[in-house]
Amino acid sequence: MALRLLIQQCISARLKLPSYQELEIGRGVIVFICFFKDANEEAVKKAYKLVSQIKLSEKEEGDKRGSVVETAGEIMIIPQATLGGKLKGSSVQYHNNIPPEQGRVLYDIFCNELETLEGVTVRRGEYGARQVLSMETNGPYSHCFDI
Amino acid sequence: MALRLLIQQCISARLKLPSYQELEIGRGVIVFICFFKDANEEAVKKAYKLVSQIKLSEKEEGDKRGSVVETAGEIMIIPQATLGGKLKGSSVQYHNNIPPEQGRVLYDIFCNELETLEGVTVRRGEYGARQVLSMETNGPYSHCFDI
Repeated sequence: MALRLLIQQCISARLKLPSYQELEIGRGVIVFICFFKDANEEAVKKAYKLVSQIKLSEKEEGDKRGSVVETAGEIMIIPQATLGGKLKGSSVQYHNNIPPEQGRVLYDIFCNELETLEGVTVRRGEYGARQVLSMETNGPYSHCFDI
Repeated sequence: MALRLLIQQCISARLKLPSYQELEIGRGVIVFICFFKDANEEAVKKAYKLVSQIKLSEKEEGDKRGSVVETAGEIMIIPQATLGGKLKGSSVQYHNNIPPEQGRVLYDIFCNELETLEGVTVRRGEYGARQVLSMETNGPYSHCFDI
């Protein structure tokens, strides 16, 4: 397993960075990503493909769902190392997570790839930092995928 | 695999039910739960134990984390069938999810168990209903566990 994605549909989201800068998106998806020791650029490409193509977003008409690109949704990317936690007794350990300096490189590649999507607003959280997230969802639909 | 839990630390959360009733919690955890076909009461008991004992909540003093009970946190439980989604091409399928009528029974057992925790406020979302969630997190710490 190279990485874990948590994809949350949202109506709006706001992320406060440690610098007190605030990032906002409207309707779209929040993508939490956690890298494991085996993560590499190939896995990041798969994650990019998944996020950009997966049909989870509501269309204005009809029941079928479309990709975030098809529905002109916005994307907020948040690094989330805690998703790699494994239970040991009643504590949680993160031994399988990638070292931060390697994770940061992959995180930047992932964000840069998504920022190339035409017509899609992308906001990215700060790697390795504690940040305050507020969000509003109408569902609330969350999906978790391992790559 | 019997069920999947997504545990989200929060500062506050508000859930609007289809009846327009609103449920609120303050500092604590949002617990999203999804039942698979193999879910049974034994798995629900394990999930209850995990949620009540896992040391993920910040204490007022010190770096160590405590359980939601130790930190007198509040719990919001939300049924979240989408967590059982499997990728097929760029679509998502839910073939491994439990039938709704069985899931509802297990969901009630899970909520009832958590409501027995002394000194812990528990709010529960409605099974099988679309509901609007707003939350504020300081982290944002999410953990995903399969049982």
